[in-house]
Amino acid sequence: YREFYQCDVDVIGSKSQVNELELVQIVDKVFGLLDVNVLVKINNRKVLTGFAEICGFPDKVVDITVAIDKLDKIGLESVEEEMREKGLTDGAIAVIEQILKLSGSTSEKLASMRSLMNGGSASGLVSETGLKGLDELEELFGLIDAAGVKCPVEIDLSLARGLNYYTGAIFEVKAVDFQIGSICGGGRYDNLTGIFGLPDMSGVGISFGADRIYDVLKGLDKFPKSLASSTTLLFACMGAEELRYVLPVAAALRSEGVSVEVYPEPSKLKKQFDYAEKKSIPFLSINGGNEAEAGTIQLKNLTTGEQKSFSKADISGMKAFMNM
Amino acid sequence: YREFYQCDVDVIGSKSQVNELELVQIVDKVFGLLDVNVLVKINNRKVLTGFAEICGFPDKVVDITVAIDKLDKIGLESVEEEMREKGLTDGAIAVIEQILKLSGSTSEKLASMRSLMNGGSASGLVSETGLKGLDELEELFGLIDAAGVKCPVEIDLSLARGLNYYTGAIFEVKAVDFQIGSICGGGRYDNLTGIFGLPDMSGVGISFGADRIYDVLKGLDKFPKSLASSTTLLFACMGAEELRYVLPVAAALRSEGVSVEVYPEPSKLKKQFDYAEKKSIPFLSINGGNEAEAGTIQLKNLTTGEQKSFSKADISGMKAFMNM
Repeated sequence: YREFYQCDVDVIGSKSQVNELELVQIVDKVFGLLDVNVLVKINNRKVLTGFAEICGFPDKVVDITVAIDKLDKIGLESVEEEMREKGLTDGAIAVIEQILKLSGSTSEKLASMRSLMNGGSASGLVSETGLKGLDELEELFGLIDAAGVKCPVEIDLSLARGLNYYTGAIFEVKAVDFQIGSICGGGRYDNLTGIFGLPDMSGVGISFGADRIYDVLKGLDKFPKSLASSTTLLFACMGAEELRYVLPVAAALRSEGVSVEVYPEPSKLKKQFDYAEKKSIPFLSINGGNEAEAGTIQLKNLTTGEQKSFSKADISGMKAFMNM
Repeated sequence: YREFYQCDVDVIGSKSQVNELELVQIVDKVFGLLDVNVLVKINNRKVLTGFAEICGFPDKVVDITVAIDKLDKIGLESVEEEMREKGLTDGAIAVIEQILKLSGSTSEKLASMRSLMNGGSASGLVSETGLKGLDELEELFGLIDAAGVKCPVEIDLSLARGLNYYTGAIFEVKAVDFQIGSICGGGRYDNLTGIFGLPDMSGVGISFGADRIYDVLKGLDKFPKSLASSTTLLFACMGAEELRYVLPVAAALRSEGVSVEVYPEPSKLKKQFDYAEKKSIPFLSINGGNEAEAGTIQLKNLTTGEQKSFSKADISGMKAFMNM
């Protein structure tokens, strides 16, 4: 993934968290359609700032976040060791420990964090920015709850994703059944458009990591089988005369939405069979002089071996045979 | 059009004219779907070579073709004058005149050309290459006839389109109801892949001129109206509480395939109305405290002014109101 494709969705110019909600709804819908179970994790930059403030180290947001991020991997003691190395005092670390030990539902976590930010932590410090961040998280989870989203959405305090960049909500999406890191990420940026000469224009966006999502679909074998072959039926080519006989039938099937290929030149039947197999084309039609004379079309299901003869005008019968 | 987009369809590796047929079928289908009347013009490089050969000037194919191409604009006399300037003799010009005066149906034209190529012209010369080209044209028109194509297809001897490039069929597509030059062009090239290290690989292709087709659609006002606005319904935003009330309804409509926007923040209604108008959104829903209390949703058709109230669960009623 040193070079990769991403599909971005961004809303610029509105501060409303309805936009954050819509991004979550889009994630929910996309992965619902792809039949991939995902978990949406949400954090808020202002809450991270709040933690640093109630620790008494407002300038160490990045150090604290980087350390918290390793909790799963290295455990609480090592996280605290790392913060100590970065110059945090035991008192500050005690505050972080209070945060990391929070548990319960989203609303319980939000309530506990609110109490800590409001002077209830070991330091007794209050963070207005942190409280603002909690208001935002609470509003967003309220909107998600009201609108109804199928996939699970949870708070993850270790989310940072380019901390200097985001100013409000921070998002990350993980595939539940496949280990690959995050497959989407994003957040709100209050002045990103400033560098393009459009100052004070808040925006929020999310990026879909196309290559990783591709690998998830491949790994979980979720690619729609219909994508493997775009052709449903191959008409074999037996000769110039037979070709003219099948062309109108091919055209009629196509105009009814059936994806049809006509093998372009008379070749050995083995070669035409192999072509159908290689391209995973499920149905083959071989028609020679007898069929042309009788006005019939042969269809063969290459999976089951079943074969049937149709009147050349019986397009709907042929479609039914091909389950269309 | 100094820089432009084109969408290409090419088939490499098969010499069968079924591929030429399929390109014509694709043109027919695409412009049928776009509701644009087109005329497909077909020529064959070998036939042009044949004309030069039966004139006795086999090395002047380009000069003859360039002159013939101007027939519509400058008339027969000026075309002959131009050929004389290029060094063609009166005898050669007499042969060209016989060709240019051919008329009748496609099969009549093909028969007359065959006779000229076969020693029946004023020069009495025979062109094997020209006869081969006529065989190809005849086969292709036979396939087109057998398969059934809706748009008109005719022979146009003035088609050249990069003469040194094509070796067989040459195509051009014109919009019948809009003056803009050709909107598609292509042909068969016998050794184009040679420059990529894949020699002796015949191919045939056609390019759709995306910018010109865009201009034709614009000029004929054929752009589907539904593309002008991708949104069917805008929910106005009256406040945080009302927002939570409409969000599940918006989500339910979306999951039924309705394209819904939710105005993201409470603004003056005038501003929200203007937004709907500017984006050509046909339906607006404004719901305040009264609607939330009554459990109803108001829908207004912004075109007719018609307004109706629905139970918030009556998604199918709302869809019917919006003709969906």
